[in-house]
Amino acid sequence: MIIDLAAIEAARHRIASEAVVTPLLSNAALDARTGATVLLKPELLQRTGSFKFRGAFNRLAALSAAERTRGVVAWSSGNHAQGVSAAARLLEIDSVIVMPSDAPRIKIENTRAYGAEVVTYDRQTESREEIATALATSRGAVLVPSFDDAHVIAGQGTVGLEIVEQAAGAGRTVDILLCCCGGGGLIAGTSTAFAALSPATKIYSVEPEEFDDTARSLAAGGRVTNGPDARSICDALLAPTPGAITFEINRALLSGGLAVSDDEVRLAMRYAFDILKLVVEPGGAVALAALLTGKIDVAGKTVAVVLSGGNVDPAAFAAVVSGDAP
Amino acid sequence: MIIDLAAIEAARHRIASEAVVTPLLSNAALDARTGATVLLKPELLQRTGSFKFRGAFNRLAALSAAERTRGVVAWSSGNHAQGVSAAARLLEIDSVIVMPSDAPRIKIENTRAYGAEVVTYDRQTESREEIATALATSRGAVLVPSFDDAHVIAGQGTVGLEIVEQAAGAGRTVDILLCCCGGGGLIAGTSTAFAALSPATKIYSVEPEEFDDTARSLAAGGRVTNGPDARSICDALLAPTPGAITFEINRALLSGGLAVSDDEVRLAMRYAFDILKLVVEPGGAVALAALLTGKIDVAGKTVAVVLSGGNVDPAAFAAVVSGDAP
Repeated sequence: MIIDLAAIEAARHRIASEAVVTPLLSNAALDARTGATVLLKPELLQRTGSFKFRGAFNRLAALSAAERTRGVVAWSSGNHAQGVSAAARLLEIDSVIVMPSDAPRIKIENTRAYGAEVVTYDRQTESREEIATALATSRGAVLVPSFDDAHVIAGQGTVGLEIVEQAAGAGRTVDILLCCCGGGGLIAGTSTAFAALSPATKIYSVEPEEFDDTARSLAAGGRVTNGPDARSICDALLAPTPGAITFEINRALLSGGLAVSDDEVRLAMRYAFDILKLVVEPGGAVALAALLTGKIDVAGKTVAVVLSGGNVDPAAFAAVVSGDAP
Repeated sequence: MIIDLAAIEAARHRIASEAVVTPLLSNAALDARTGATVLLKPELLQRTGSFKFRGAFNRLAALSAAERTRGVVAWSSGNHAQGVSAAARLLEIDSVIVMPSDAPRIKIENTRAYGAEVVTYDRQTESREEIATALATSRGAVLVPSFDDAHVIAGQGTVGLEIVEQAAGAGRTVDILLCCCGGGGLIAGTSTAFAALSPATKIYSVEPEEFDDTARSLAAGGRVTNGPDARSICDALLAPTPGAITFEINRALLSGGLAVSDDEVRLAMRYAFDILKLVVEPGGAVALAALLTGKIDVAGKTVAVVLSGGNVDPAAFAAVVSGDAP
């Protein structure tokens, strides 16, 4: 399958009955602070609380009847987990999700609540790929990758399609797009939509400082890996290296990669609480963090910022917004 | 001035350049929990973080040039304060706001930040009306009521106009509307819009248990007052009695009044955080609380719920969402 505008439009058609067309929001205080016209895409309002439902539902809806009866297996730190679990229930497919034992509790509980069987593993000593592959083999189930898959990327690309169209509806064309990047599925799909519909838009990935593998891979011209001791509060963005498929797309379409510190992420989460009135999880706040801390010059520009998810434990959120976070 | 659909449409035109047309949101988990099709109107996304900007801007934009030079005075527990202050700055009018000294800090700080002079008073021993009237008299300034004013009510009525139109755009007509009620300006304006455009909709006010003056006034057929010892965490909804103008409208147009406890409000705030990913202040959560706790039968119905604001102090919000609230 080729990932192009037609694939993304097909994905939109496939997910339309179940996914939310999230709004594109403006905030006068944010515009005043940045000197830009900022358009926020709040995917925390998406079904399951993150954009991941789009790609997961698109992938599962494309399975054959025979594949559906075999069930699906996925691994995920939490948002893909919830997306696959919720999509599987809607399509009446059995699902097993392999999740790190230290994932946010809300993500594990929600994944179970949507109907998946959850298998936990130790991120420091076990391989999620091996566990998931063994499970899929023993059960004859279909593995659902979290980013390096054409249907998943096309599904996430509906975010880009919506931004372009909603911005146009508000009389705007997007000069700069800031989008978080873990494995790179969301930004690969989104930049594919922009390349077709708004090719002048400059697109930047935003990653946690020690997980800036895409930024460094773009600079190096090939895929590099994060260090084994890298740590970040952005539990959704801890992929060790860019995907093979996603990086081929991102290498062609991105203008560059930005990185933000955990403290900058906390600042953005607090700003989203104080001013935007939105609950944004750490990984969902990196693009806003890059904007607020001036990682790129946006003066006078129209800037689209993806807020990719809002699945954060209450205690962690409380600590961040009340300023008690470590 | 008569408060009718034409007045509300004029208000929409007047505020269009500065106010946000907030989206109408759906959430699959909320629909599944309630057995209804729920349409959420998140006025926390409005400029200044509550619907109050609509009425305040509409009122101030209608002032004559001579009135504008004299400045404005208002009293408010916080959301009208921010609305008036922000509208006054946009229109280059001086503003003085009389606020209770125990108002949420975020509301006092924001009101100052928008440019108003803030005068605080003790809610237990001083009269805000007397202080504000004395200030207006001594300065020759115009008093801007927080609810009992035709322009203010018409401005808040734009919320109703938008809900009817946005629901229709989604192929829905609203069977039941749940809306918070303090002095009654928002629900009076909103029900006026519904009476003209969606007359079959049943509209219910929702108030804090000990501040259910509108519910009791509707039942009694005349305005009654809350007890002097009434307490609630809903700082935005502590008006002692319905407005004269608002009650005449609400008496004609509402189907009844509901009340919720502080614990039910906390439950709704926590639900909004966990599932909706929205920051809702106590007074903004009463309509959602009534829905979630089954105060009215909504099975199979289309229910619109107004989330009126999101201005809550971080520590208070943190305590509620992490379950530590008293």
